[in-house]
Amino acid sequence: MGIQDLKTHLGEIHDINMASSILEWDQETKMPPAGANARAAQLATLAKFAHERFVSSTTEKHLVGLEKESFEYDSDEAALLRLTRREFDKSSKLPSEFVAEQSRAKALSLNVWREARATNDFKKFAPNLEQMYVLARRKADYLGFEEHPYDALLDEYEPGLTARVVETTFADLRDQTVPLVQAIAAKGPATDYSILTRDCDEQVQETFGLEVAQAFGYDLSRGRLDRAAHPFETAFSRDDVRITTRYDRHYFPMALFGTLHETGHALYELGTAPELARTRLAQGTSLGVHESQSRMWENLVGRSRAFWTHWYPRFVAHFPQFGDVSPEEIYKAVNRVQPSLIRVEADEITYNLHVMLRFELEKAMLEGSLNASDLPEAWNSKMQSYLGITPPDDARGVLQDIHWSMGLIGYFPTYTLGNILSVQLLEAAKTKIGDTDAMFANGEYAPLLGWLRENIHRHGKKYKPDELVQRATGSSITAKPYVAYLKKKFGEIYGLES
Amino acid sequence: MGIQDLKTHLGEIHDINMASSILEWDQETKMPPAGANARAAQLATLAKFAHERFVSSTTEKHLVGLEKESFEYDSDEAALLRLTRREFDKSSKLPSEFVAEQSRAKALSLNVWREARATNDFKKFAPNLEQMYVLARRKADYLGFEEHPYDALLDEYEPGLTARVVETTFADLRDQTVPLVQAIAAKGPATDYSILTRDCDEQVQETFGLEVAQAFGYDLSRGRLDRAAHPFETAFSRDDVRITTRYDRHYFPMALFGTLHETGHALYELGTAPELARTRLAQGTSLGVHESQSRMWENLVGRSRAFWTHWYPRFVAHFPQFGDVSPEEIYKAVNRVQPSLIRVEADEITYNLHVMLRFELEKAMLEGSLNASDLPEAWNSKMQSYLGITPPDDARGVLQDIHWSMGLIGYFPTYTLGNILSVQLLEAAKTKIGDTDAMFANGEYAPLLGWLRENIHRHGKKYKPDELVQRATGSSITAKPYVAYLKKKFGEIYGLES
Repeated sequence: MGIQDLKTHLGEIHDINMASSILEWDQETKMPPAGANARAAQLATLAKFAHERFVSSTTEKHLVGLEKESFEYDSDEAALLRLTRREFDKSSKLPSEFVAEQSRAKALSLNVWREARATNDFKKFAPNLEQMYVLARRKADYLGFEEHPYDALLDEYEPGLTARVVETTFADLRDQTVPLVQAIAAKGPATDYSILTRDCDEQVQETFGLEVAQAFGYDLSRGRLDRAAHPFETAFSRDDVRITTRYDRHYFPMALFGTLHETGHALYELGTAPELARTRLAQGTSLGVHESQSRMWENLVGRSRAFWTHWYPRFVAHFPQFGDVSPEEIYKAVNRVQPSLIRVEADEITYNLHVMLRFELEKAMLEGSLNASDLPEAWNSKMQSYLGITPPDDARGVLQDIHWSMGLIGYFPTYTLGNILSVQLLEAAKTKIGDTDAMFANGEYAPLLGWLRENIHRHGKKYKPDELVQRATGSSITAKPYVAYLKKKFGEIYGLES
Repeated sequence: MGIQDLKTHLGEIHDINMASSILEWDQETKMPPAGANARAAQLATLAKFAHERFVSSTTEKHLVGLEKESFEYDSDEAALLRLTRREFDKSSKLPSEFVAEQSRAKALSLNVWREARATNDFKKFAPNLEQMYVLARRKADYLGFEEHPYDALLDEYEPGLTARVVETTFADLRDQTVPLVQAIAAKGPATDYSILTRDCDEQVQETFGLEVAQAFGYDLSRGRLDRAAHPFETAFSRDDVRITTRYDRHYFPMALFGTLHETGHALYELGTAPELARTRLAQGTSLGVHESQSRMWENLVGRSRAFWTHWYPRFVAHFPQFGDVSPEEIYKAVNRVQPSLIRVEADEITYNLHVMLRFELEKAMLEGSLNASDLPEAWNSKMQSYLGITPPDDARGVLQDIHWSMGLIGYFPTYTLGNILSVQLLEAAKTKIGDTDAMFANGEYAPLLGWLRENIHRHGKKYKPDELVQRATGSSITAKPYVAYLKKKFGEIYGLES
């Protein structure tokens, strides 16, 4: 049994997992409503078959045999063995009864959360939430950890990252961010924000969004754009990478920046090396690094002044109703900073405060120092202290996110990690390719995409996040460039003292 | 191990098969072009896993155990056991090396056929075609047959039907049809056919088609309509039954009758009993019975005078360009009879001649009395004798259909069987529900749909086709009502002596 046999074995499991992704894409974009029950069964069966095959003695035999051979560290083969071993050991640590129990509890909890959010009834959801944390804690115990149970969960999404590192990074970021938000609030509006609510035809929004996405490098022979209530990107192979978005006639930034965000995710998957195809290596290495790509194209490119300089004529050609507005006014409007209740609608600066609050609460819940019943109060008090506002109800507070209801605990920090990394990577790219602002002002994205492909995309999951960042930037993950970016950009927009 | 364990086991296999159908639907309707390679691998893996599970000793054990119990013949359980045993024995007769060989040959042959058709080069395709027939013959030998190897193949699509029965039925139908076609040709045009080519916006065509489909009973909470180059219907459960169609701005009948055809197929799947869900019983019993449903809604309803009486105002509201044309003129135009080269574009009468020709040729090929290299000549000579025309090239002759290139041999007769059955079933329905023409003239379809659901749809695959038809109509499958229908309808349209 050689490496090719392992690849064939894993390739079949990969096929099943990709089939699941296709069924999920269909479910979110095309499936008629009544199709839901049968779809749940189909997805459960695919997941079961894929899991059975993966944790089988066949996988073990392949691994044991191949681990005796010596592959070069940087080879695809060595990376595949490392990743497969890591995931095999993890999967094997979780008793299958536990996996089934968690899966049932998740389905139940998700339903209760949906109802609780709709009726603004946190009490109804509290027992399920408590249960999700109990199960998360058990999972952490099964998986094992050195310092904190949170580390075991975080490792699922961001291999190698620990709660301690997150804490230090976030503390520093918070110290720099809160005063910035306060200074901006004191300054008042930077421009007339009412332009953002001008009526924009949805079809035209789609056309413009796709035009920009294609200019960034998104290739419609290898992807497509559909509508979804909760936008996402998904890949069924490096040659079939799809994005979704949603539209608001009276708030064009939603679809436009949503599309560019998902385009960023898609460019990552489209750029994985063909040699990694049909293996688990052919995908982004972690949620944080993935988010760095989406945030880069959404914010560092799409929300840059240079972007609006270049795209202004095309934007006005599509939306003549903005003929009386200057590119500078649009630039300032789409970069409005304002404390708000909902994470997914937050601006670049306050967004991270939403994430920090969730990180602190989920860590406390996992430790047992906070109970589900006390969560709304803790949430509201942190909202007041970080953002200066208190949610009028739990639906717009602690109940807003789907994550905890699905047991996605330890996931939130990756959003802020993505923001941080996006700037660190762009700064590293600049040292090689030069002044990106000048390029963006010309609508020139190939140099940046080329650098990302070479240093990030093509490697897929070959390296853990920190190792990848080290290789790409020469240093470990650091928030310094990100803080500097925020201060410079928003200080300038709001005319703050530097 | 009880029946519930068998159901769970088969349910999982069913889930995998449904996942394949979803991947195929996506492939034909949504997939970006570059996604094809990965999709082929995904489909192959799903097929392999489903097959492995089905022909496993687990299935055998379940069957042997349950066959000792006695279930009532009419129970779902007994039907499930009968069907599973039949399919298990069949699958077990085919060596897996043979299945793999056939699957590889098919993929190759399909590609060569595509090229050969595009370049009108039959010689290029002849060796692959010969090979498909050799494999089909071997398959028939593996499966076994009493009279003719063709029976073994036919049984895959139309359980219980034999070549001998097809021959007798077709001979009679041909004898009645050829003179009818000649009489019509002698009469000349029944109306001005040029109205069919009037420009009709595709979006409006879609809207009108869906309006009619919904009036027939197609439910968009359990289905959807998309575009596809080769239209089809597909079901992922009884609550997710999708149809596709294609559009020609300058020939509205294509999309309209195509949509109604696929709607007919869909109504069958939507009507299977909920108790059969997640089993192989939850689908049409055979291709012929399936086609009887599509042809009924397409032709017996959609191409009826009563249909156009009722829908004329809505049609003209959507297409004001037909304001100068009477419903009677549209009725006659969409029922134009004219010998033509392409089966899928043929009218109700000549369509069957296309099918008969194929049946005779494939039977001869399978017997070995005809070689692939002699096929074009045989094709052209039969076209001349049945339809009075000779194809100008093989692309519009022997190369036109995809079926043989994929090894679908023994499939064609089911199309004509569907035509025959559609009338037999409608006549039976009339004896219970009354004058359907009067209902259609009022846009009233619920009585017909109700009768079909009760007598055909709900049973799914519980009974073999002839048994089902016996139960529904009190007699075996017969072409008499169909011939009478053709003579009456077209005799009247063309003013022939009766």
